[in-house]
Amino acid sequence: MEALDHIAIAIEGPAAKERWMQLVGQAPFHEEEVAAQGVRVTFFQLGPTKIELLEPLSPDSPVGRFLEKRGPGLHHIAFFVQDLQAEAQRLKEANFEPLSQEPQPAALGKQAIFFHPRSTGGVLIELVSYLP
Amino acid sequence: MEALDHIAIAIEGPAAKERWMQLVGQAPFHEEEVAAQGVRVTFFQLGPTKIELLEPLSPDSPVGRFLEKRGPGLHHIAFFVQDLQAEAQRLKEANFEPLSQEPQPAALGKQAIFFHPRSTGGVLIELVSYLP
Repeated sequence: MEALDHIAIAIEGPAAKERWMQLVGQAPFHEEEVAAQGVRVTFFQLGPTKIELLEPLSPDSPVGRFLEKRGPGLHHIAFFVQDLQAEAQRLKEANFEPLSQEPQPAALGKQAIFFHPRSTGGVLIELVSYLP
Repeated sequence: MEALDHIAIAIEGPAAKERWMQLVGQAPFHEEEVAAQGVRVTFFQLGPTKIELLEPLSPDSPVGRFLEKRGPGLHHIAFFVQDLQAEAQRLKEANFEPLSQEPQPAALGKQAIFFHPRSTGGVLIELVSYLP
């Protein structure tokens, strides 16, 4: 693991985004839809790391189901790695459970592999890296 | 907010700590008991930010009650600020609810003021700074 890339927070609606702007004390530097994950994301830069707000594009997306079950709050943490396949392999060999075998499209033109919270002590983990 | 200082994860027992060492791929750089918060903390350095594992010192501590209610997982995020009182005041004026009016002792010789998740969209927030 090179560094903490971002932490992601599930939110409900535009008022919540406004509230996070107040809390962080700045405007977001980037917004986009990540169709592959069914979310609209909003990024704040905080020194070298980022906060990512997650709004579901539909109630039956992963973040939509998360909100229904747990309400808004911390959703996952993402580590930046140089070699995504090698680091994912290292975790798989240590019995951490990937949600996909292949990298998935992620925000900011990156790629990612997620690991299931039941294998990590209750925290959804994302490994993120640049596209090859 | 200057930067993300750390993210904190509630864990149950020493096996969980071992598991996080495997995940992060490194040994912790620091451990201590923070009596004021009823926890034993373990820190990993990840580039400029940190991961803090929280083990309750007793079941009726805040982290003990969190574990009973929600199980292990993401517990709070901490922002580093230069002027703790000024930044806490800014948040109070924006109707974020502090858990204490005065700074509390925190790990690594710092001081902190927490803000209640019900005022922040479901995320326990810590403002942390150096002692005056």
